[in-house]
Amino acid sequence: MTEIVRADGRSTDQLREITIERGWSAQAEGSALISFGGTKVLCTASFTNGVPRWLTGKGKGWVTAEYAMLPRATNSRNDRESVKGRIGGRTHEISRLIGRALRAVVDTKALGENTIVIDCDVLQADGGTRTAAITGAYVALADAIEWGRAKKFIGKNATPLLDSVAAVSVGIIDGEPMLDLAYVEDVRAETDMNIVVTGRGLFVEVQGTAEGAPFDKRELDALLDLGVAGCATLKDLQTAALAGE
Amino acid sequence: MTEIVRADGRSTDQLREITIERGWSAQAEGSALISFGGTKVLCTASFTNGVPRWLTGKGKGWVTAEYAMLPRATNSRNDRESVKGRIGGRTHEISRLIGRALRAVVDTKALGENTIVIDCDVLQADGGTRTAAITGAYVALADAIEWGRAKKFIGKNATPLLDSVAAVSVGIIDGEPMLDLAYVEDVRAETDMNIVVTGRGLFVEVQGTAEGAPFDKRELDALLDLGVAGCATLKDLQTAALAGE
Amino acid sequence: MTEIVRADGRSTDQLREITIERGWSAQAEGSALISFGGTKVLCTASFTNGVPRWLTGKGKGWVTAEYAMLPRATNSRNDRESVKGRIGGRTHEISRLIGRALRAVVDTKALGENTIVIDCDVLQADGGTRTAAITGAYVALADAIEWGRAKKFIGKNATPLLDSVAAVSVGIIDGEPMLDLAYVEDVRAETDMNIVVTGRGLFVEVQGTAEGAPFDKRELDALLDLGVAGCATLKDLQTAALAGE
Amino acid sequence: MTEIVRADGRSTDQLREITIERGWSAQAEGSALISFGGTKVLCTASFTNGVPRWLTGKGKGWVTAEYAMLPRATNSRNDRESVKGRIGGRTHEISRLIGRALRAVVDTKALGENTIVIDCDVLQADGGTRTAAITGAYVALADAIEWGRAKKFIGKNATPLLDSVAAVSVGIIDGEPMLDLAYVEDVRAETDMNIVVTGRGLFVEVQGTAEGAPFDKRELDALLDLGVAGCATLKDLQTAALAGE
Amino acid sequence: MTEIVRADGRSTDQLREITIERGWSAQAEGSALISFGGTKVLCTASFTNGVPRWLTGKGKGWVTAEYAMLPRATNSRNDRESVKGRIGGRTHEISRLIGRALRAVVDTKALGENTIVIDCDVLQADGGTRTAAITGAYVALADAIEWGRAKKFIGKNATPLLDSVAAVSVGIIDGEPMLDLAYVEDVRAETDMNIVVTGRGLFVEVQGTAEGAPFDKRELDALLDLGVAGCATLKDLQTAALAGE
Amino acid sequence: MTEIVRADGRSTDQLREITIERGWSAQAEGSALISFGGTKVLCTASFTNGVPRWLTGKGKGWVTAEYAMLPRATNSRNDRESVKGRIGGRTHEISRLIGRALRAVVDTKALGENTIVIDCDVLQADGGTRTAAITGAYVALADAIEWGRAKKFIGKNATPLLDSVAAVSVGIIDGEPMLDLAYVEDVRAETDMNIVVTGRGLFVEVQGTAEGAPFDKRELDALLDLGVAGCATLKDLQTAALAGE
Repeated sequence: MTEIVRADGRSTDQLREITIERGWSAQAEGSALISFGGTKVLCTASFTNGVPRWLTGKGKGWVTAEYAMLPRATNSRNDRESVKGRIGGRTHEISRLIGRALRAVVDTKALGENTIVIDCDVLQADGGTRTAAITGAYVALADAIEWGRAKKFIGKNATPLLDSVAAVSVGIIDGEPMLDLAYVEDVRAETDMNIVVTGRGLFVEVQGTAEGAPFDKRELDALLDLGVAGCATLKDLQTAALAGE
Repeated sequence: MTEIVRADGRSTDQLREITIERGWSAQAEGSALISFGGTKVLCTASFTNGVPRWLTGKGKGWVTAEYAMLPRATNSRNDRESVKGRIGGRTHEISRLIGRALRAVVDTKALGENTIVIDCDVLQADGGTRTAAITGAYVALADAIEWGRAKKFIGKNATPLLDSVAAVSVGIIDGEPMLDLAYVEDVRAETDMNIVVTGRGLFVEVQGTAEGAPFDKRELDALLDLGVAGCATLKDLQTAALAGE
Repeated sequence: MTEIVRADGRSTDQLREITIERGWSAQAEGSALISFGGTKVLCTASFTNGVPRWLTGKGKGWVTAEYAMLPRATNSRNDRESVKGRIGGRTHEISRLIGRALRAVVDTKALGENTIVIDCDVLQADGGTRTAAITGAYVALADAIEWGRAKKFIGKNATPLLDSVAAVSVGIIDGEPMLDLAYVEDVRAETDMNIVVTGRGLFVEVQGTAEGAPFDKRELDALLDLGVAGCATLKDLQTAALAGE
Repeated sequence: MTEIVRADGRSTDQLREITIERGWSAQAEGSALISFGGTKVLCTASFTNGVPRWLTGKGKGWVTAEYAMLPRATNSRNDRESVKGRIGGRTHEISRLIGRALRAVVDTKALGENTIVIDCDVLQADGGTRTAAITGAYVALADAIEWGRAKKFIGKNATPLLDSVAAVSVGIIDGEPMLDLAYVEDVRAETDMNIVVTGRGLFVEVQGTAEGAPFDKRELDALLDLGVAGCATLKDLQTAALAGE
Repeated sequence: MTEIVRADGRSTDQLREITIERGWSAQAEGSALISFGGTKVLCTASFTNGVPRWLTGKGKGWVTAEYAMLPRATNSRNDRESVKGRIGGRTHEISRLIGRALRAVVDTKALGENTIVIDCDVLQADGGTRTAAITGAYVALADAIEWGRAKKFIGKNATPLLDSVAAVSVGIIDGEPMLDLAYVEDVRAETDMNIVVTGRGLFVEVQGTAEGAPFDKRELDALLDLGVAGCATLKDLQTAALAGE
Repeated sequence: MTEIVRADGRSTDQLREITIERGWSAQAEGSALISFGGTKVLCTASFTNGVPRWLTGKGKGWVTAEYAMLPRATNSRNDRESVKGRIGGRTHEISRLIGRALRAVVDTKALGENTIVIDCDVLQADGGTRTAAITGAYVALADAIEWGRAKKFIGKNATPLLDSVAAVSVGIIDGEPMLDLAYVEDVRAETDMNIVVTGRGLFVEVQGTAEGAPFDKRELDALLDLGVAGCATLKDLQTAALAGE
């Protein structure tokens, strides 16, 4: 069997170079500048004591996320959504995905009546921005929770984080399943899948789309295996980032 | 083993009553009023000769979809998105999903420089509106294509439809995988999945979300099996609707 | 004198076929799917105990209406107002007209501090959508009021409905006054008038517009006579619909 | 019979003091600052050679109107529609009414491929702003047409104006029909009607609304008579304004 | 040295004809229709007892301003910002400037918990609209404060106005500094500056922009001298307007 | 005389630490990540061959700028302008200022029919974001112009850049003029001024505002002197950044 070598020299089951610059922001309660190769996402977590009105008095907290891209994050400039006066469908969809992914590992009772808003702003885009955002957002979230604990907004023994969470894209290119697609790969993929997995290896979200031909169960299984393995590596990098001081 | 009986008397692998009222609209080139139990969606297909400017001169057609809900489709009234002045994230997300699902079975070269817009308006909602919308939209689309052929906008021997497409929701409730969730089931589901499958049984889209606890590979497989079987039944109902005149 | 026969075979003073499918919606407190020939409007009434803030504590209720059209209700597709991000002048104008027509027969004191929102969504349009909407909205309103009475939000002996209300269009085509214009007639009318009349035969609203040549008093009187007679027939159909169960 | 004297000393069939300051604007091709008592509306007509794209090449012109109110035209300040980001229903409705009224007396073929936009901005409001706007707009329109003729955009012998047009409000207060309601009268009126009449005395628009009790044919006739007489007086004042230089 | 004579016959250090029609509006608590030559701005001051929520209970008042232009104030018609659905950058910028200028001479403690909103609507534009607006707004503000004192919303001995404020434009044209630019001058200016000065001759705002070539300190000083002198004259006109009854 | 030492240890005429990370973006034709102490702004320049329609065929290019802030750039989170659906006045005002500052040093004839859009996104804010943006934008602009020259969109001998441009804030705190205010200083300043100066030391923009008491000519002169000196230092840093590769 001939080994497949990708444009950037990676093997099919290899992540791009991942860096996590924890605490990038001097303003936010938690933050991380995460890179998946050329994709760079600034994740900040804003902690507020109190919850939105619709949740008041229920003894539960709230975690939500917003995703956006700088106009020149991509190869050609996109108009700002603030200038267009409306948020596009893709932005909405990704913001909702990130929020669900984070809430899946948060015990909102243990968080208490506190709100954490995670902003994921793509400074540079080269494929996989939503999965980089989720992976970096978890680091920012974890630090914001520790900030809340230090400020006594969260109980000393409360454990609002049930597990860690990371995400990665996988796809089939020329019939070959591959991990963590760069932009040039993403546009060529027949099937594109984003997988969100907890530190314990359970699925939080599986979103697979046939961009070209529909796919069968065998292909689906191959993609899931690749993604689960990639998320396990990302989990180790998150742990290392959070251990460093 | 005790057999599980659902609130509405169905077995776990049973669809709700499905009806497809083909040609409901006297105005549209194709249409269907589809019901999945209490969920009723009016799907209309609008055929236009010509394509959007960005596609002109490429010899390809375009298929897109818009999803919306009447304000009182649900148990309590929602404000109109036209009144709020912006489309919500959920609406955007579902519109994009329907469009992708339909395009997966369309050969846009064979369609020629024609545009088909599918509107899916939920008149009454009881869970599974997006999957009913996809299933009904396919019927409207098929009729609009035949209309275009009759009008000679599409070649006599062209086959723009590569396959049929249907969709169904599946979910895990109290640990039990179930097919085609009604609203009361949907809100209780630990895991919720929408599956879009072609007439040949291949996957177009798999979207699984852990609403409660994360899920494992075994549960994922059980849900996929249920969904594929449900879509096969829906395919037969689509075929019957399109055969009747 | 030669008798004039209209395109659809009606005489000049004849309504199109009117059907009122009362209770169409399983979700709303009152509803009616009304047809004036090819015009089909789904009217739902949403009852809420309580009133908007600006009316609180005055012992009065509130009735309001919103009108909209599905994008493919008409012969060619119109962009959604939610997508355009703003409601058009015509939509606003008709929503306000329906609200005024209904409030003219409601005793808001007797209604008590309750709010009823009537949604009139045009599923299919063939002229006269606003008059069909008013006529159907009355049926939905009457049922919502009875729902409120059954739930004890409205006093047992209170009579919030002072009268019934119906509406019809009239117009002059080729010099001839005609009742209940279909779309093909509407576009040819020199003068177009919408008349809203109570069950007792009094005017609530008279809106006449010269689309072609200005009109004189004699023509105005002929149109008013036709409209009043048409509304009397509609009143009987409303009564029958509300009597049936 | 006791004669009724109104708050401002007028008889029931008397207009308020009407002034028309023709050519108020140094910028517009036609303009008039019109007062109906305390109601002051600045009407400007902007003439452009050419028509909107949808009308190109049909040999016809276009006349349209926009109505607005300064935030402190009224007794208490209203938020600007530009700040709210959307135009209210009332504004839309009145803009459309003014446009229809003017187009009713314009021969768009004779106007040629020219566009005239009439802006009616209420500087001070005391009832009857839409009728003052129509009456003043006619004067601005007439001057803009003469400007277009002088510039040779309109043929020397073309007669784009078929007639003049004016408007007035009428209403029933304490059972008594009255002409040209001031704001304090308007809020008390049981029935409120706006009548648009050509110089020849024909109806262009009749809009009557029961604000309190529904009204009968006898009342309707009394209001129409008052309005027609009022418009005849307004026509004389328009003629005088246009005669003066 | 040859004396420079401007297009309208003024010398370089001469203001256009300034008129201040105090109390133009019958509705507002304070108002002025101010003209700087062909520039006409209607300034109204709306006094409300109470302050916005974010200021409640601090014992301080609030003064803010909104600027806008009628669509045909200028030589060619501009679309309405209400129709476009958003306020342009220039409008925002000028509104903020007027608000800052007025607040610079208001002691908000002495004003008490009262709000004054100043609306500056340009009825006709011929350069210098923002400086005319500030100059006229001060007159409207002063009258609104006296209204509040008469109504006992402001203490008898309180002095909310610390000073008067006026503004004027200056610019360099063909190398020559000039005062109060008309539109034809403004478009030719190499440097354009707006200066806001208190009655005592102190600067509130200095906004100079190189439209053509950048400018040096000597030019800047010449412009400042011209502007300070112009504002002193405007102060006298304001004083005269407020003295007259 | 006692020397004043500022909170961060600077003298009154000292800039914060300035860093310019040229070429930060792998996507844009020119870019710089600039820091003024804790203020960090990412400036990207997007070069497009061609100009907006309104400029076509005039043989001139176009340079414009957009400024924005990430939601958590500041100490507490601000809602996104894209979510609010409109751009705030401050954002508009600063975008316009940056655009004017850059255009003041660009010869648009020499630029040819090319468009450069500069995006200045504040990643972290600690006062002086608009002046950092202008200073960094110049570096991005210069590189984008060289890119255009390398691609032959700009003539080999054309010199579109007439000069460099930089900006700095100055203000009076406790009566003392100070250079380059950090956020904690900015909120305390009695007078706040932004000065934009070319490499040759000429003024492009002078914007001074009395936040507290109005200021006199002597204070104005002191601020201008400080600002001009600060911009001279910034010019040297820009030159160094553009020289390094």
